[in-house]
Amino acid sequence: MENDKETGSRVWKYGDDVDTDALAPGAYMQLGIEGIAPHCLENLVPAFAREVRAGDVIVAGRNFGIGSSREQAAAVLVHLGVAAVIAPSYGGLFFRNAFNLGLLLLTCPDAGSLRSQPQLAIARQPLRLVLPDGRAVACEPVPDFLLAMAQAGGLLPQLRQRLAAQAVSRL
Amino acid sequence: MENDKETGSRVWKYGDDVDTDALAPGAYMQLGIEGIAPHCLENLVPAFAREVRAGDVIVAGRNFGIGSSREQAAAVLVHLGVAAVIAPSYGGLFFRNAFNLGLLLLTCPDAGSLRSQPQLAIARQPLRLVLPDGRAVACEPVPDFLLAMAQAGGLLPQLRQRLAAQAVSRL
Repeated sequence: MENDKETGSRVWKYGDDVDTDALAPGAYMQLGIEGIAPHCLENLVPAFAREVRAGDVIVAGRNFGIGSSREQAAAVLVHLGVAAVIAPSYGGLFFRNAFNLGLLLLTCPDAGSLRSQPQLAIARQPLRLVLPDGRAVACEPVPDFLLAMAQAGGLLPQLRQRLAAQAVSRL
Repeated sequence: MENDKETGSRVWKYGDDVDTDALAPGAYMQLGIEGIAPHCLENLVPAFAREVRAGDVIVAGRNFGIGSSREQAAAVLVHLGVAAVIAPSYGGLFFRNAFNLGLLLLTCPDAGSLRSQPQLAIARQPLRLVLPDGRAVACEPVPDFLLAMAQAGGLLPQLRQRLAAQAVSRL
Protein backbone atom coordinates (compact mmCIF):
# COMPACT_ATOMS: atom_id res chain seq x y z
CA MET A 1 0.00 0.00 0.00
CA GLU A 2 2.44 2.63 -1.18
CA ASN A 3 -0.13 5.14 -2.34
CA ASP A 4 -1.91 7.41 0.07
CA LYS A 5 -5.19 6.39 -1.51
CA GLU A 6 -5.82 2.89 -2.72
CA THR A 7 -8.02 1.96 -5.61
CA GLY A 8 -11.58 1.10 -4.67
CA SER A 9 -12.28 -2.27 -3.11
CA ARG A 10 -15.39 -4.38 -3.47
CA VAL A 11 -17.40 -4.64 -0.27
CA TRP A 12 -18.73 -7.79 1.42
CA LYS A 13 -21.33 -7.04 4.09
CA TYR A 14 -22.00 -8.91 7.32
CA GLY A 15 -23.96 -8.22 10.50
CA ASP A 16 -23.05 -8.26 14.21
CA ASP A 17 -21.22 -11.02 16.05
CA VAL A 18 -19.53 -12.82 13.14
CA ASP A 19 -17.54 -15.33 15.20
CA THR A 20 -14.32 -17.23 14.64
CA ASP A 21 -16.24 -20.43 13.92
CA ALA A 22 -17.99 -18.72 10.99
CA LEU A 23 -14.61 -17.57 9.69
CA ALA A 24 -12.72 -20.83 10.26
CA PRO A 25 -15.29 -23.60 10.85
CA GLY A 26 -14.19 -26.11 13.45
CA ALA A 27 -15.08 -29.07 11.22
CA TYR A 28 -12.29 -28.19 8.77
CA MET A 29 -9.56 -27.06 11.16
CA GLN A 30 -7.44 -30.17 10.63
CA LEU A 31 -7.21 -29.43 6.89
CA GLY A 32 -4.97 -26.40 7.22
CA ILE A 33 -5.64 -22.96 5.74
CA GLU A 34 -6.10 -24.23 2.18
CA GLY A 35 -8.71 -26.68 3.38
CA ILE A 36 -10.47 -24.16 5.62
CA ALA A 37 -10.57 -21.37 3.00
CA PRO A 38 -13.40 -22.77 0.81
CA HIS A 39 -15.61 -22.86 3.93
CA CYS A 40 -14.83 -19.39 5.25
CA LEU A 41 -18.14 -17.66 6.08
CA GLU A 42 -20.10 -20.29 4.12
CA ASN A 43 -22.84 -20.36 6.75
CA LEU A 44 -23.49 -16.64 6.25
CA VAL A 45 -22.80 -16.00 2.55
CA PRO A 46 -22.17 -19.29 0.75
CA ALA A 47 -20.62 -17.60 -2.30
CA PHE A 48 -18.02 -15.63 -0.32
CA ALA A 49 -15.01 -17.95 -0.51
CA ARG A 50 -15.67 -18.69 -4.18
CA GLU A 51 -16.18 -15.12 -5.31
CA VAL A 52 -13.99 -12.99 -3.04
CA ARG A 53 -11.11 -11.34 -4.91
CA ALA A 54 -7.79 -10.04 -3.69
CA GLY A 55 -8.27 -6.49 -2.42
CA ASP A 56 -11.91 -6.87 -1.42
CA VAL A 57 -12.94 -5.56 1.99
CA ILE A 58 -15.42 -6.78 4.59
CA VAL A 59 -17.81 -4.35 6.28
CA ALA A 60 -19.36 -5.86 9.39
CA GLY A 61 -21.24 -5.05 12.56
CA ARG A 62 -20.17 -5.16 16.19
CA ASN A 63 -17.89 -7.79 17.70
CA PHE A 64 -16.40 -9.12 14.46
CA GLY A 65 -14.20 -12.13 15.27
CA ILE A 66 -15.61 -12.93 18.70
CA GLY A 67 -15.24 -16.45 20.01
CA SER A 68 -12.17 -18.61 20.19
CA SER A 69 -8.54 -17.58 19.93
CA ARG A 70 -7.95 -19.65 16.76
CA GLU A 71 -5.50 -17.77 14.56
CA GLN A 72 -6.96 -19.39 11.45
CA ALA A 73 -9.94 -17.01 11.67
CA ALA A 74 -7.66 -14.13 10.66
CA ALA A 75 -5.24 -16.23 8.59
CA VAL A 76 -8.00 -17.45 6.27
CA LEU A 77 -9.01 -13.88 5.38
CA VAL A 78 -5.36 -13.09 4.59
CA HIS A 79 -5.17 -16.29 2.52
CA LEU A 80 -8.24 -15.22 0.53
CA GLY A 81 -6.74 -11.79 -0.14
CA VAL A 82 -9.10 -9.67 1.98
CA ALA A 83 -7.49 -6.22 2.17
CA ALA A 84 -9.18 -5.05 5.36
CA VAL A 85 -12.10 -5.54 7.70
CA ILE A 86 -14.15 -2.48 8.71
CA ALA A 87 -16.32 -2.79 11.80
CA PRO A 88 -17.26 -0.78 14.91
CA SER A 89 -15.68 -3.35 17.27
CA TYR A 90 -13.80 -6.66 17.29
CA GLY A 91 -13.18 -9.64 19.50
CA GLY A 92 -10.03 -8.76 21.45
CA LEU A 93 -8.17 -11.98 20.62
CA PHE A 94 -9.09 -11.67 16.94
CA PHE A 95 -7.83 -8.07 16.91
CA ARG A 96 -4.52 -9.20 18.35
CA ASN A 97 -4.17 -12.13 15.95
CA ALA A 98 -5.22 -10.15 12.87
CA PHE A 99 -2.44 -7.57 12.96
CA ASN A 100 0.10 -10.26 13.96
CA LEU A 101 -0.90 -12.12 10.77
CA GLY A 102 -0.98 -9.08 8.50
CA LEU A 103 -4.71 -8.36 8.35
CA LEU A 104 -5.67 -4.69 8.59
CA LEU A 105 -8.67 -3.99 10.84
CA LEU A 106 -10.28 -0.57 10.75
CA THR A 107 -12.43 0.43 13.70
CA CYS A 108 -15.18 2.58 12.32
CA PRO A 109 -18.11 3.60 14.57
CA ASP A 110 -20.18 4.39 11.47
CA ALA A 111 -19.49 1.10 9.71
CA GLY A 112 -23.26 0.55 9.54
CA SER A 113 -23.62 3.50 7.17
CA LEU A 114 -21.16 1.85 4.76
CA ARG A 115 -23.28 -1.21 4.18
CA SER A 116 -24.97 0.22 1.10
CA GLN A 117 -21.67 1.05 -0.61
CA PRO A 118 -20.57 -1.16 -3.50
CA GLN A 119 -16.99 0.10 -3.31
CA LEU A 120 -14.71 1.76 -0.76
CA ALA A 121 -11.18 3.09 -0.81
CA ILE A 122 -8.86 3.24 2.19
CA ALA A 123 -6.85 6.44 2.47
CA ARG A 124 -4.08 7.36 4.91
CA GLN A 125 -2.97 10.33 6.97
CA PRO A 126 -5.45 10.52 8.47
CA LEU A 127 -6.71 6.98 8.14
CA ARG A 128 -10.17 7.14 6.58
CA LEU A 129 -12.54 5.50 4.13
CA VAL A 130 -13.42 7.25 0.93
CA LEU A 131 -16.80 6.60 -0.69
CA PRO A 132 -17.34 6.52 -4.46
CA ASP A 133 -18.84 10.05 -4.30
CA GLY A 134 -15.69 11.38 -2.60
CA ARG A 135 -17.04 11.68 0.92
CA ALA A 136 -14.74 10.48 3.71
CA VAL A 137 -15.73 8.39 6.74
CA ALA A 138 -13.47 8.57 9.80
CA CYS A 139 -11.84 5.55 11.41
CA GLU A 140 -10.15 5.27 14.79
CA PRO A 141 -6.43 5.95 14.38
CA VAL A 142 -4.18 2.89 14.16
CA PRO A 143 -0.65 3.30 15.54
CA ASP A 144 2.07 3.42 12.89
CA PHE A 145 3.77 0.28 14.21
CA LEU A 146 0.58 -1.74 13.71
CA LEU A 147 -0.03 -0.31 10.24
CA ALA A 148 3.56 -1.21 9.36
CA MET A 149 3.05 -4.71 10.77
CA ALA A 150 -0.07 -5.26 8.65
CA GLN A 151 1.68 -3.87 5.58
CA ALA A 152 4.69 -6.16 6.12
CA GLY A 153 2.38 -9.20 6.20
CA GLY A 154 2.43 -9.60 9.98
CA LEU A 155 4.71 -9.83 12.98
CA LEU A 156 7.02 -12.62 11.79
CA PRO A 157 7.52 -11.31 8.22
CA GLN A 158 8.21 -7.87 9.70
CA LEU A 159 10.78 -9.34 12.09
CA ARG A 160 12.43 -11.29 9.26
CA GLN A 161 12.64 -8.11 7.15
CA ARG A 162 14.22 -6.19 10.04
CA LEU A 163 16.75 -8.93 10.76
CA ALA A 164 17.63 -9.19 7.06
CA ALA A 165 18.09 -5.42 6.87
CA GLN A 166 20.37 -5.52 9.93
CA ALA A 167 22.39 -8.37 8.41
CA VAL A 168 22.84 -6.39 5.18
CA SER A 169 23.87 -3.26 7.07
CA ARG A 170 26.65 -5.27 8.74
CA LEU A 171 28.16 -6.42 5.43
CA MET B 1 -2.11 -16.00 40.99
CA GLU B 2 -0.90 -19.41 42.00
CA ASN B 3 -4.16 -20.71 43.37
CA ASP B 4 -6.89 -22.01 41.14
CA LYS B 5 -9.35 -19.76 42.91
CA GLU B 6 -8.42 -16.34 44.10
CA THR B 7 -9.82 -14.59 47.10
CA GLY B 8 -12.77 -12.32 46.42
CA SER B 9 -12.08 -8.95 44.85
CA ARG B 10 -13.99 -5.72 45.38
CA VAL B 11 -15.93 -4.63 42.31
CA TRP B 12 -15.94 -1.19 40.67
CA LYS B 13 -18.77 -0.76 38.17
CA TYR B 14 -18.83 1.26 34.97
CA GLY B 15 -21.10 1.48 31.93
CA ASP B 16 -20.52 1.19 28.18
CA ASP B 17 -17.82 2.97 26.18
CA VAL B 18 -15.35 3.86 28.93
CA ASP B 19 -12.65 5.36 26.73
CA THR B 20 -8.89 5.73 27.05
CA ASP B 21 -9.25 9.43 27.83
CA ALA B 22 -11.36 8.57 30.89
CA LEU B 23 -8.68 6.09 32.00
CA ALA B 24 -5.65 8.28 31.25
CA PRO B 25 -6.87 11.87 30.78
CA GLY B 26 -5.02 13.73 28.08
CA ALA B 27 -4.45 16.77 30.30
CA TYR B 28 -2.11 14.79 32.58
CA MET B 29 -0.26 12.65 30.04
CA GLN B 30 2.97 14.60 30.38
CA LEU B 31 3.14 13.78 34.11
CA GLY B 32 3.88 10.09 33.68
CA ILE B 33 1.95 7.24 35.27
CA GLU B 34 2.30 8.54 38.84
CA GLY B 35 0.86 11.88 37.75
CA ILE B 36 -1.92 10.32 35.68
CA ALA B 37 -3.01 7.81 38.34
CA PRO B 38 -4.84 10.23 40.69
CA HIS B 39 -7.01 11.27 37.72
CA CYS B 40 -7.85 7.79 36.40
CA LEU B 41 -11.61 7.59 35.81
CA GLU B 42 -12.16 10.79 37.85
CA ASN B 43 -14.80 12.03 35.41
CA LEU B 44 -16.92 8.90 36.02
CA VAL B 45 -16.29 7.98 39.66
CA PRO B 46 -14.24 10.69 41.37
CA ALA B 47 -13.33 8.46 44.34
CA PHE B 48 -11.91 5.62 42.23
CA ALA B 49 -8.22 6.49 42.20
CA ARG B 50 -8.25 7.41 45.88
CA GLU B 51 -10.14 4.35 47.10
CA VAL B 52 -9.18 1.52 44.73
CA ARG B 53 -7.13 -1.18 46.44
CA ALA B 54 -4.74 -3.74 45.01
CA GLY B 55 -6.72 -6.75 43.85
CA ASP B 56 -9.94 -4.89 43.07
CA VAL B 57 -11.64 -5.61 39.75
CA ILE B 58 -13.56 -3.44 37.30
CA VAL B 59 -16.85 -4.64 35.81
CA ALA B 60 -17.84 -2.58 32.80
CA GLY B 61 -20.09 -2.51 29.76
CA ARG B 62 -19.32 -2.79 26.07
CA ASN B 63 -16.24 -1.34 24.39
CA PHE B 64 -14.13 -0.78 27.48
CA GLY B 65 -10.94 1.04 26.49
CA ILE B 66 -12.12 2.40 23.14
CA GLY B 67 -10.40 5.45 21.75
CA SER B 68 -6.73 6.16 21.35
CA SER B 69 -3.86 3.70 21.39
CA ARG B 70 -2.25 5.30 24.47
CA GLU B 71 -0.66 2.55 26.54
CA GLN B 72 -1.10 4.60 29.71
CA ALA B 73 -4.81 3.68 29.72
CA ALA B 74 -3.87 0.10 30.64
CA ALA B 75 -0.66 0.99 32.51
CA VAL B 76 -2.51 3.21 34.98
CA LEU B 77 -4.85 0.38 35.99
CA VAL B 78 -1.82 -1.87 36.55
CA HIS B 79 -0.19 0.93 38.57
CA LEU B 80 -3.28 1.22 40.77
CA GLY B 81 -3.30 -2.54 41.38
CA VAL B 82 -6.45 -3.46 39.46
CA ALA B 83 -6.44 -7.27 39.21
CA ALA B 84 -8.67 -7.59 36.16
CA VAL B 85 -11.27 -5.90 34.01
CA ILE B 86 -14.45 -7.82 33.18
CA ALA B 87 -16.52 -6.61 30.23
CA PRO B 88 -18.40 -8.01 27.22
CA SER B 89 -16.04 -6.29 24.73
CA TYR B 90 -12.98 -4.06 24.52
CA GLY B 91 -11.33 -1.58 22.24
CA GLY B 92 -8.96 -3.66 20.11
CA LEU B 93 -5.90 -1.53 20.76
CA PHE B 94 -6.61 -1.48 24.50
CA PHE B 95 -6.96 -5.27 24.49
CA ARG B 96 -3.59 -5.60 22.83
CA ASN B 97 -1.89 -3.10 25.16
CA ALA B 98 -3.45 -4.50 28.34
CA PHE B 99 -2.00 -8.01 28.11
CA ASN B 100 1.34 -6.61 26.90
CA LEU B 101 1.42 -4.53 30.10
CA GLY B 102 0.24 -7.30 32.43
CA LEU B 103 -3.44 -6.40 32.84
CA LEU B 104 -5.84 -9.34 32.71
CA LEU B 105 -9.01 -8.70 30.67
CA LEU B 106 -11.89 -11.14 30.92
CA THR B 107 -14.46 -11.13 28.13
CA CYS B 108 -17.75 -11.97 29.73
CA PRO B 109 -20.97 -11.65 27.69
CA ASP B 110 -22.97 -11.56 30.94
CA ALA B 111 -20.88 -8.85 32.59
CA GLY B 112 -24.05 -6.79 32.99
CA SER B 113 -25.45 -9.36 35.43
CA LEU B 114 -22.37 -8.91 37.64
CA ARG B 115 -22.99 -5.26 38.31
CA SER B 116 -24.92 -5.90 41.52
CA GLN B 117 -22.15 -8.05 43.03
CA PRO B 118 -20.05 -6.51 45.81
CA GLN B 119 -17.32 -9.15 45.38
CA LEU B 120 -16.10 -11.57 42.73
CA ALA B 121 -13.45 -14.25 42.58
CA ILE B 122 -11.59 -15.31 39.43
CA ALA B 123 -11.11 -19.06 39.06
CA ARG B 124 -9.15 -21.01 36.46
CA GLN B 125 -9.51 -24.15 34.37
CA PRO B 126 -11.93 -23.27 33.05
CA LEU B 127 -11.60 -19.52 33.41
CA ARG B 128 -14.70 -18.27 35.21
CA LEU B 129 -16.00 -15.82 37.77
CA VAL B 130 -17.32 -17.08 41.06
CA LEU B 131 -20.01 -15.09 42.87
CA PRO B 132 -20.22 -14.84 46.68
CA ASP B 133 -23.04 -17.44 46.67
CA GLY B 134 -20.85 -19.92 44.80
CA ARG B 135 -22.43 -19.59 41.37
CA ALA B 136 -20.03 -19.44 38.42
CA VAL B 137 -20.27 -17.09 35.43
CA ALA B 138 -18.51 -18.15 32.23
CA CYS B 139 -15.87 -16.05 30.45
CA GLU B 140 -14.46 -16.46 26.97
CA PRO B 141 -11.33 -18.64 27.14
CA VAL B 142 -8.01 -16.79 27.19
CA PRO B 143 -5.06 -18.60 25.58
CA ASP B 144 -2.48 -19.88 28.06
CA PHE B 145 0.27 -17.70 26.59
CA LEU B 146 -1.75 -14.55 27.26
CA LEU B 147 -2.67 -15.64 30.79
CA ALA B 148 1.02 -16.34 31.41
CA MET B 149 1.91 -12.92 29.99
CA ALA B 150 -0.56 -11.15 32.29
CA GLN B 151 0.66 -13.18 35.27
CA ALA B 152 4.30 -12.35 34.48
CA GLY B 153 3.47 -8.63 34.52
CA GLY B 154 3.42 -8.22 30.75
CA LEU B 155 5.41 -8.92 27.61
CA LEU B 156 8.74 -7.35 28.61
CA PRO B 157 8.89 -8.78 32.16
CA GLN B 158 7.98 -12.20 30.70
CA LEU B 159 10.76 -11.88 28.13
CA ARG B 160 13.26 -10.83 30.81
CA GLN B 161 12.26 -13.83 32.96
CA ARG B 162 12.72 -16.20 30.02
CA LEU B 163 16.08 -14.76 29.07
CA ALA B 164 17.23 -14.93 32.72
CA ALA B 165 16.11 -18.56 32.94
CA GLN B 166 18.00 -19.37 29.74
CA ALA B 167 21.11 -17.64 31.07
CA VAL B 168 20.90 -19.65 34.31
CA SER B 169 20.42 -22.91 32.40
CA ARG B 170 23.64 -22.22 30.50
CA LEU B 171 25.72 -21.86 33.70
